[in-house]
Amino acid sequence: MSQFLRKHIEGIVNLSDEEFETVQSLFIKRKFRKRQFVIQENQMVSEIYLIEKGLLKSSFTDQTGKEHILQFAAANWWISDFAGFFKKEPSSLAVDCIEDTEMYAVSHENLQVLCSEIPVMEHFFRIKSNFGYVALQQRILSLMSKSAKERYEDFVQQYPGFINHLPKQLIAAYLGISRETLSRLYT
Amino acid sequence: MSQFLRKHIEGIVNLSDEEFETVQSLFIKRKFRKRQFVIQENQMVSEIYLIEKGLLKSSFTDQTGKEHILQFAAANWWISDFAGFFKKEPSSLAVDCIEDTEMYAVSHENLQVLCSEIPVMEHFFRIKSNFGYVALQQRILSLMSKSAKERYEDFVQQYPGFINHLPKQLIAAYLGISRETLSRLYT
Repeated sequence: MSQFLRKHIEGIVNLSDEEFETVQSLFIKRKFRKRQFVIQENQMVSEIYLIEKGLLKSSFTDQTGKEHILQFAAANWWISDFAGFFKKEPSSLAVDCIEDTEMYAVSHENLQVLCSEIPVMEHFFRIKSNFGYVALQQRILSLMSKSAKERYEDFVQQYPGFINHLPKQLIAAYLGISRETLSRLYT
Repeated sequence: MSQFLRKHIEGIVNLSDEEFETVQSLFIKRKFRKRQFVIQENQMVSEIYLIEKGLLKSSFTDQTGKEHILQFAAANWWISDFAGFFKKEPSSLAVDCIEDTEMYAVSHENLQVLCSEIPVMEHFFRIKSNFGYVALQQRILSLMSKSAKERYEDFVQQYPGFINHLPKQLIAAYLGISRETLSRLYT
C-alpha cells in the first residue's frame, strides 16, 4: 500500500480503506530516468502524473528552436500537458526528467472512473485544478509586469528546494532571460 | 426560471428540475453599469461570476501605474480574481465593466453547497476549472514565445466577437504592446 499516495490525497479529502483500494488500483506507478521524455511534442497526451520522487520540467520549443520552460515539478506536484490532456489534442509541450523520477500516472479512463465512483476524488481534482489555475495566473502576472530581477526573486520563493538542483540555463529559460542576465542576478 | 443559466450548465452536465431549482436558488443575479468595478484590488474576493450579458476585463496594475489586462470576458464566460477567491486572499486583480453587464454570482458558501448537494455540479466546476487552466497555459505560451503580431492574431482568433467593442488601448494593454505598435498591426 502506498503511504505516499494516501497522504497526498488525504491532504485534501478523507478516504475509507475501501475507497483507497480503488484509488490505488487506478494510479499506475511509472519510473523514468534522467533526460527521459514523459511527453513529447505533437503526441496525444494520455496521462497526468503525480510525482513521488524526482524533478521534471514542462517546456515549449518555439519555431526558432528556443526552449521556454512553463513549469518545474518535484515530489507532490502534478505534471502533464494539461491542455493536450483535457482537450484531447496533440501536446504543444514536452515533459522530461531533470533527475531520475518515480510517478503515479492517471489515464483519461481511470480519471473518469475515479471521479464517478468516488465523489470525494472529483472534489480532490477540482481543488487541485483550482490551485493549478492560481499558479498559472501568478505566472502570467509575473511575465506581464515584472523585471527579470523580480521574476528571479519570485522563482526563488516558489521553488525554494529546487534552485540548487537546476542548471543555470534552465532557470534562464524559465525566467525568459539570457544566462548572462541570470549570472548578474545571482551575485 | 433562467433558461440562460440552465442552458449554460447543461452544456456540460444534465440537471433534474429539482436540482435546477436548488442551483437557481444559489446563483444570485447582479447588474453592473459600464465602468463599474466588480472587484477592486486588495479586497477580499467573495464571489465568482457567470456573465449573461455584457463585457468585462480583469487586470493588474503594476507599481508604475501601468495596467496589464489578464482577460476579457463576455456572455457565457466566468470571471473573478480566482486566485484571491480560491486562496481566500486579497485580490491582486481588478475586475470592471467595459459595457453594462448582467451576471450570476456564486459565493464561497453557495459553491460549497452546490458541490456537496449536487454531485454533477462538482463535476461541472471541475471541468470549467480545467478549461480555465488550459486557456491560461495558452496565454503563457503566447507571452513567452510569440511576437506582437502573432499575439494579435491569437487574440483575434480567441475573441472574434469582441474585437470591435474594445478600445485600442485596452487591446494594447492585453497584448503587452504600445498603441503605436498595435496601430501598425491593424493596417
